[in-house]
Amino acid sequence: MPRSPRLSRRDFIGRSSAGIASVATVAAATSVGFATIPSRAAGRDWRIRNAAADALLRPEADDYDDLIKLNYNENPYGPSEQVVAAMTEAFKYASRYGYPDRAVKSVIAEHHGVERENILLGAGSGEILEVVGLSLLSRDKKVVGSDPSYSAVYSHASGIHAESITVPLRDDYSQDIPALIDATNRHYRDVGFVYLCNPNNPTGRPIPADDVRNLLDGIPADVPVLIDEAYHHFAEDPDYASAIPHVLEGRRVIVARTFSKLFGLAALRLGFAVTTPEMISVMEPYTTGSINALAKYGAVAALEDTDAQRHMRDRTIALRKKTSDELRGMGYDVIPSETNFIMVQTGRPAREVRTAFREHGIVVGRPFPPLLNHLRVSIGSEKEMAMFMAAFREIFAA
Amino acid sequence: MPRSPRLSRRDFIGRSSAGIASVATVAAATSVGFATIPSRAAGRDWRIRNAAADALLRPEADDYDDLIKLNYNENPYGPSEQVVAAMTEAFKYASRYGYPDRAVKSVIAEHHGVERENILLGAGSGEILEVVGLSLLSRDKKVVGSDPSYSAVYSHASGIHAESITVPLRDDYSQDIPALIDATNRHYRDVGFVYLCNPNNPTGRPIPADDVRNLLDGIPADVPVLIDEAYHHFAEDPDYASAIPHVLEGRRVIVARTFSKLFGLAALRLGFAVTTPEMISVMEPYTTGSINALAKYGAVAALEDTDAQRHMRDRTIALRKKTSDELRGMGYDVIPSETNFIMVQTGRPAREVRTAFREHGIVVGRPFPPLLNHLRVSIGSEKEMAMFMAAFREIFAA
Repeated sequence: MPRSPRLSRRDFIGRSSAGIASVATVAAATSVGFATIPSRAAGRDWRIRNAAADALLRPEADDYDDLIKLNYNENPYGPSEQVVAAMTEAFKYASRYGYPDRAVKSVIAEHHGVERENILLGAGSGEILEVVGLSLLSRDKKVVGSDPSYSAVYSHASGIHAESITVPLRDDYSQDIPALIDATNRHYRDVGFVYLCNPNNPTGRPIPADDVRNLLDGIPADVPVLIDEAYHHFAEDPDYASAIPHVLEGRRVIVARTFSKLFGLAALRLGFAVTTPEMISVMEPYTTGSINALAKYGAVAALEDTDAQRHMRDRTIALRKKTSDELRGMGYDVIPSETNFIMVQTGRPAREVRTAFREHGIVVGRPFPPLLNHLRVSIGSEKEMAMFMAAFREIFAA
Repeated sequence: MPRSPRLSRRDFIGRSSAGIASVATVAAATSVGFATIPSRAAGRDWRIRNAAADALLRPEADDYDDLIKLNYNENPYGPSEQVVAAMTEAFKYASRYGYPDRAVKSVIAEHHGVERENILLGAGSGEILEVVGLSLLSRDKKVVGSDPSYSAVYSHASGIHAESITVPLRDDYSQDIPALIDATNRHYRDVGFVYLCNPNNPTGRPIPADDVRNLLDGIPADVPVLIDEAYHHFAEDPDYASAIPHVLEGRRVIVARTFSKLFGLAALRLGFAVTTPEMISVMEPYTTGSINALAKYGAVAALEDTDAQRHMRDRTIALRKKTSDELRGMGYDVIPSETNFIMVQTGRPAREVRTAFREHGIVVGRPFPPLLNHLRVSIGSEKEMAMFMAAFREIFAA
């Protein structure tokens, strides 16, 4: 049931997580359907992906290797043998700056049907998201996006003294495109860029291709739109499509992609933007240009290893369906996911539930306000998902 | 012979590279002893360390492995076996974000006599230098430093729309501390930070510890000073000392260090800042937080492998002396170096000379204006330096 973009955020929150004081405070400021997150308010959780800020999974934990890690949407299989072999080859250039890099930018460009001039590399797509913030935001320029979404974008904006204008999800967890268009147009003069995570994290929902086009058509053409396709490879919905063709139309669209998910190279740190040469010239001075040799070699091998890609994708999608079906069979609502994680409405606070899972040696996703009674669970291996389901049955036996 | 800080830059340039039009243009604006580099003027050479922008050493070159690479001040030996073994171990975490990281920050802190709260990691010290620029510079805040020095700092400033105020080196290639103090105090309101490269690149000259202290004492205490100690490990001069103790005094000093040089991990991308927790809180929002797992494991192993450190350091210093002595024996001035490179005054344009070396399969340093008749040569292995000397004798036989 699509909602009017003018409905207040309080209505939405009232239904999904009534009585949470901190959320209500934000909602009080949102009488026209979007909230403003002030700068420097959101603390440091934009660093969560890299620093394991999750208190239930400290990197110094003795039992890290034994834990079942379903909290960061990681690839449970790791890179393929060919990819590890390619990375190992790069050790011979460990002490060099200007080594042969397997033409990684050209290879990425070719695999995505664009030119080398359309590619900007980052140390993970996280660097791409930050570079967009650094180059397009300021005390006077804000980001517009949905909430909840990948909150690192808003936290980073806050850290660099920029505000975020956020629009709540609809009741069906879809992103409210008319409200995003409205928020962008109302604040046009103050908008640095619009952020779309597609499919969205933490809900797993895709934005239909028609809606992406409607958004681009509905806002001034000079407003850059960052479309984060970190979970692109796990989407099956025929209404979903990558936004790369919009880049080729010459629009100010920046598509962010990563080698951290399907390609299993999160710890190697490589991502990239597909965008126009004009946007790259704006963004590039804010990049570190600091990609390690092994990530470059691994990425080229990973793009070429289509068997491994298919294998990982198929297993993940099959387990996503199996787990979702089992949970639904037990009477729980599971948000239909097009990613490598699912979100289940457990009716109990995620904070409590994840502590219970931790006692079973399983780490699941942190709470994602205002969806505080939902649990985000990454799709692990077959064995891991069987153990997750066994623990789920015990924890929710009562 | 120390020069007055009020002497014009034209005097200096007149003696070192007379008649170079582009340099003279800069000099014309510097009647009080320093030049202002306008923002967005310096192009993109801040990326040179990572992207092999050197036209004589394209990464796609078929003959890269066979070339003798004496242009980027790289470690010719690469990481030790123990370091490679440690990195290989980290492959098991390739697809993870929150893996055990060998407590790399604590290990670095302990090795440098500071607390974990004094350390900020970067993807190479290059990221640290850029983060200082991003967090402290703006259209209204400039960097003050020597010229020539590590120009990436000024180019990066320019790329993010900030100006640089530069002070020429003295005749003996030392950094002109009184002039740097004078420039900082004159422009106090507009200074974002002061940059010192110590020992300096491209000259190899150290700043005596007393001069560093004089500079810190001679400028307002709230002006941050970035001291780039990338070549720290190769300095033997008893007058040189690391500035880390100044951090512990609570001064606004940021010491940048790297694992790229002595530790042979340039392609892995790890560096760090040693500074106050207050400065870290200012800088951290501008970091990517994106350090790959292998760099972390390699760095910890490299710090522990003191045998390899000593071996690499001793060989480099011995070859630096040997090469310098041979060149001096042939009648050439060599700037006394405390780094892993030397600079020799050949009396011929570096641009020409490096083309001649390239024909011998050797790549030497690019021109460093205004020292256009000097050649910067990285210290390679014994065999590489023998081949360098043989080529030098042929090229300069006339």
